[in-house]
Amino acid sequence: MIIVMKASSKADEINRVTKRIEDFGLKVHISEGVDHTVIGVLGNVFTELRDALELLPGVEQVLLVSKPYKLASREFHPRDTVVEVKGVAIGGPEIIIMAGPCAIESEEQLLATAQAVKAAGASVLRGGAFKPRTSPYDFRGLGETGLKILAAVGKENKMPVITEVMSPDQVDLVAKYADILQVGARNMQNFVLLDEVGKTNKPVLLKRGLSSTIQEWLLAAEYILAQDNEQVILCERGIRTFETQTRNTMDISSIPIIERVSHLPIIGDPSHAAGKWYLVPPLALAAVAAGADGLLIEVHPNPDMALADGPQSLNFDSFGLLMSQLLPIAQARNRQLANKVAKSKP
Amino acid sequence: MIIVMKASSKADEINRVTKRIEDFGLKVHISEGVDHTVIGVLGNVFTELRDALELLPGVEQVLLVSKPYKLASREFHPRDTVVEVKGVAIGGPEIIIMAGPCAIESEEQLLATAQAVKAAGASVLRGGAFKPRTSPYDFRGLGETGLKILAAVGKENKMPVITEVMSPDQVDLVAKYADILQVGARNMQNFVLLDEVGKTNKPVLLKRGLSSTIQEWLLAAEYILAQDNEQVILCERGIRTFETQTRNTMDISSIPIIERVSHLPIIGDPSHAAGKWYLVPPLALAAVAAGADGLLIEVHPNPDMALADGPQSLNFDSFGLLMSQLLPIAQARNRQLANKVAKSKP
Amino acid sequence: MIIVMKASSKADEINRVTKRIEDFGLKVHISEGVDHTVIGVLGNVFTELRDALELLPGVEQVLLVSKPYKLASREFHPRDTVVEVKGVAIGGPEIIIMAGPCAIESEEQLLATAQAVKAAGASVLRGGAFKPRTSPYDFRGLGETGLKILAAVGKENKMPVITEVMSPDQVDLVAKYADILQVGARNMQNFVLLDEVGKTNKPVLLKRGLSSTIQEWLLAAEYILAQDNEQVILCERGIRTFETQTRNTMDISSIPIIERVSHLPIIGDPSHAAGKWYLVPPLALAAVAAGADGLLIEVHPNPDMALADGPQSLNFDSFGLLMSQLLPIAQARNRQLANKVAKSKP
Amino acid sequence: MIIVMKASSKADEINRVTKRIEDFGLKVHISEGVDHTVIGVLGNVFTELRDALELLPGVEQVLLVSKPYKLASREFHPRDTVVEVKGVAIGGPEIIIMAGPCAIESEEQLLATAQAVKAAGASVLRGGAFKPRTSPYDFRGLGETGLKILAAVGKENKMPVITEVMSPDQVDLVAKYADILQVGARNMQNFVLLDEVGKTNKPVLLKRGLSSTIQEWLLAAEYILAQDNEQVILCERGIRTFETQTRNTMDISSIPIIERVSHLPIIGDPSHAAGKWYLVPPLALAAVAAGADGLLIEVHPNPDMALADGPQSLNFDSFGLLMSQLLPIAQARNRQLANKVAKSKP
Repeated sequence: MIIVMKASSKADEINRVTKRIEDFGLKVHISEGVDHTVIGVLGNVFTELRDALELLPGVEQVLLVSKPYKLASREFHPRDTVVEVKGVAIGGPEIIIMAGPCAIESEEQLLATAQAVKAAGASVLRGGAFKPRTSPYDFRGLGETGLKILAAVGKENKMPVITEVMSPDQVDLVAKYADILQVGARNMQNFVLLDEVGKTNKPVLLKRGLSSTIQEWLLAAEYILAQDNEQVILCERGIRTFETQTRNTMDISSIPIIERVSHLPIIGDPSHAAGKWYLVPPLALAAVAAGADGLLIEVHPNPDMALADGPQSLNFDSFGLLMSQLLPIAQARNRQLANKVAKSKP
Repeated sequence: MIIVMKASSKADEINRVTKRIEDFGLKVHISEGVDHTVIGVLGNVFTELRDALELLPGVEQVLLVSKPYKLASREFHPRDTVVEVKGVAIGGPEIIIMAGPCAIESEEQLLATAQAVKAAGASVLRGGAFKPRTSPYDFRGLGETGLKILAAVGKENKMPVITEVMSPDQVDLVAKYADILQVGARNMQNFVLLDEVGKTNKPVLLKRGLSSTIQEWLLAAEYILAQDNEQVILCERGIRTFETQTRNTMDISSIPIIERVSHLPIIGDPSHAAGKWYLVPPLALAAVAAGADGLLIEVHPNPDMALADGPQSLNFDSFGLLMSQLLPIAQARNRQLANKVAKSKP
Repeated sequence: MIIVMKASSKADEINRVTKRIEDFGLKVHISEGVDHTVIGVLGNVFTELRDALELLPGVEQVLLVSKPYKLASREFHPRDTVVEVKGVAIGGPEIIIMAGPCAIESEEQLLATAQAVKAAGASVLRGGAFKPRTSPYDFRGLGETGLKILAAVGKENKMPVITEVMSPDQVDLVAKYADILQVGARNMQNFVLLDEVGKTNKPVLLKRGLSSTIQEWLLAAEYILAQDNEQVILCERGIRTFETQTRNTMDISSIPIIERVSHLPIIGDPSHAAGKWYLVPPLALAAVAAGADGLLIEVHPNPDMALADGPQSLNFDSFGLLMSQLLPIAQARNRQLANKVAKSKP
Repeated sequence: MIIVMKASSKADEINRVTKRIEDFGLKVHISEGVDHTVIGVLGNVFTELRDALELLPGVEQVLLVSKPYKLASREFHPRDTVVEVKGVAIGGPEIIIMAGPCAIESEEQLLATAQAVKAAGASVLRGGAFKPRTSPYDFRGLGETGLKILAAVGKENKMPVITEVMSPDQVDLVAKYADILQVGARNMQNFVLLDEVGKTNKPVLLKRGLSSTIQEWLLAAEYILAQDNEQVILCERGIRTFETQTRNTMDISSIPIIERVSHLPIIGDPSHAAGKWYLVPPLALAAVAAGADGLLIEVHPNPDMALADGPQSLNFDSFGLLMSQLLPIAQARNRQLANKVAKSKP
């Protein structure tokens, strides 16, 4: 941490700052600049101290030097984390596709979707049983009935399954059926929920919040990692901006930034980012070109009859077409599509 | 709902749209424009139908005419809601000040604060026992011990108390001690929590989410109202923008907009909006000038020793000064300060 | 400037950085931290050097200590700047109201407006002759004809006049008729225009850009000040955010921040911030409560017949009502309304 | 245009609205809904009328049905526009790479860069002679001297050249030397400049403004097109958001949206979007994967000695590496790299 004193600061103000730091058991290092005195602090700094120093007379600015997250940082953990779940490796050399409907509506719907997306190259089956909805009057999912359908269809098709958990008291129930727990964008800073999913031994897919910085996102991952659950997958799904032609703005830059500052795998969710089905294929291709380890895509047998998020779902044909376009993009980045490789084995 | 067809749409596309609407039991009304055919829909429309129509061939745009919230709207409920709690009326002719420390640290700290803010004109005592923190390594509050201190100090000073509840399974515990339940900005779309606080008979203060539109905020209030809890107080605490000199950007316009479209009381939280103590007084004055029904203000006996949010807390002197400036602003809006009136009675 | 080296940086990387700085004629000061080596730079730093250092191997972060603007800063110029124009003092003890139509449509329209706003307490007459319009198909103003009307009506009513200049080659023409030159939000970083208005001896009202930080806004002011024109008035008119119920989000916090970091006067423009007439009075009151030195308000004899910005214009009655509410707010901030004082003299 | 009346609107309010519309020579079509009366307007609508109707008593909402731009829309002009300049076709089957330094510093610097980028596959040479700078104290470019160097080096290397024009009175000068005129992000709504570049017969590259919606961007293009200059190239270069780890947030979705709603070519500028050189290659690949017609990339012989934008410039090696990765991505989208094709001819 570095404290920049005001140009007009006086000796007793500087002394008060240094004393305060030393009271925390930390050492200081003072540099006299032309305009400003600068005080460096050696050692780990707590938020409380930083906040306190900002208030002292004569202080112009307090600058943090170290990143506030540690377990999630590549500095602390240089090698890529690979999350393994039932034979699927997320964050390894293969691009992993997770696909399925926004909401599970029936066994028929989910089964048809699972077969179609697996045939086209998906490895993981997604489907929502508990749905967060902006309006209380919208369909909120089938609950445990949906979870049972999901587990059964996943098993039948030999696909691990992922579904959202919305509340700390749902964690045990959802973990009973799901292979990967999803924490949604609106819950990215639901800290009690982060603690709870951290206590399970299940991989967690953590979506970026609508208005979360990359640093806040990694601090949310830090909550899970701090509970000794190291299987965290990050998912970029678009941030809120002033543009109204898309539901959210996919922050494509977050993919290479995460790759640089963190060891955790990152996947892209073009369906929620765009909110419109015809934008999903170009955004999916872009995410893989930018370095994503996988994709989460909404697919529905009949999007215009869907009970949730129909406008952003692909039908089977357009999903199949996307998968065929994806392969050369993956190869251009020296990667393979997971399921394609599997199929090419004898 | 209005469906605008593309300039190039054909008769069978129009027929498909109208049939789909009629399948939902709704009536249509078709207008032929110069460029576009426009289809009006009479009756209440579900999100599923809107989503489905957007996907049909030939459809250019689907426009909603009615507001998606109902119980929170002034159209549905023209008279102002006044939330009464232990003799304090929020949303009535008096401006209500809620003040206290960000986090409860000890009985001494809270008692000193309660006495000081009450003497200066505050009516409600605030204090956090469960603290949402961006980093897992920061102080997260005293928990139930904090709640007990809060209830005791509130009782001793005859002030109703408000504190945050972060999780559905904490609702019963917090409701045992608190007079008003606070739902924080990061939980504004924690829908399970909204349902739970809606099931209590306690007033709920609902903070606006960092990246929530006014419409989403009112839909979150609708979740609580839909559980038959009509005692909802809205709180503007700043939204996330590109500006970095403030922690958040206080959206001062939301105050008169809420007053126009909703019957619920609205108060301002200048402490979280600004993130810097020296901005709190001007923002507090501005919020009341814009029509706020009250303020939520962080006050600490010794802000530079605070365990949380020190930089945005006022000390007793600056809080007292603010209160003296507030009175003429309240009067300019034909309102009074609650506690001042009480004191002037014989 | 402070350079934080990576935890993994090596001695030769540190040497390369220090050599590069010394090549610019600056001195360095090295501190060894627990994790990071930190290099302080003494003296004035150019953007080129900062940019270059960011690229050197081993560098983690480059932090600027000094503010990049100087002439606009309160540190450099502690006393408030007061801009005087034909007996009206902007930035002094009186609140100054500038009012008039968005676009000048005719002499009748402007004359009626001038008389009405002056009677209600406005000191400066505003009116647009060159109008920036998002669409090329909208009314773009009367041009020089409009300027002549403005100058004539201002003279007749003894009110200094303000109008927008959109282009460097219009500066001489507009300066011939106007007392204050207005640079619009879309031109805040039109650097050639800033240079040109800086070369005149006219006061300049500089609106904040839609997506400009406060620091960029002060750097734009610095362009004008650097041409030896010290008569700059800042104007907050709302920034672009995700909220769609207002045209822009008035950043009320910028008013006390500018007051703290700069000596330049600042006024509020609630008409453009809100985009809706019924939001103008509460935002106007809030701006003055927050410390603004004045207001810029659109007033039209018949807003629903206006050729531009009708929805955000007040009519004469609502402007008069606002002025009567404004006085006690101004007094609560220990200020007066300019014109009211004038009228009370014998 | 559609006018939705309030639930409480009365017959005379509806009559007043219809009369007002008919006074503009337009026809109305009235639909009675369950809650709301809806009035449709047939024919082209001016902004003035829309603004006026919003103000009339009883009006709840005014909705625009037609897009406000026409010449830029694909509806009006279904076939792709291909901009031809000295044998380079932008918007055709080949991906076009424009590369060069942010600022022209010397003939040596530009010549070395031109040779390197051409050898690696670039078709167009970029270089700034007039530089918009946030601070008045930064390097602002070589001016006409720079233009002369640019023209000479372009001619010598048989590359068309592109450079920025910042002001209406510079247009003739810049057009004398440049093959493509660039309008920068900060000038996207400099309407006088748009008119002037529209009057030349040179292609114009129009960068998206930092806080401009896609619709405003197309309306800015409309200004140029309305002057009968049909050679407009759009360029996505990132928008301003709350994220601070990138200079701007590249809105990757704008590429497929523009492709859908407009016939104009669109290219990506990953250098300005990212602000950091290591993000340029992944963003460049993503832009082409998303469907961009080309790229604008900053390349400098020695980025850490650059006079402007060093941190976001590639050196020759990293540019060459990027070009080799780009080819398979282009091919995956059924496109070629322009210059590669040229080189493969006998």
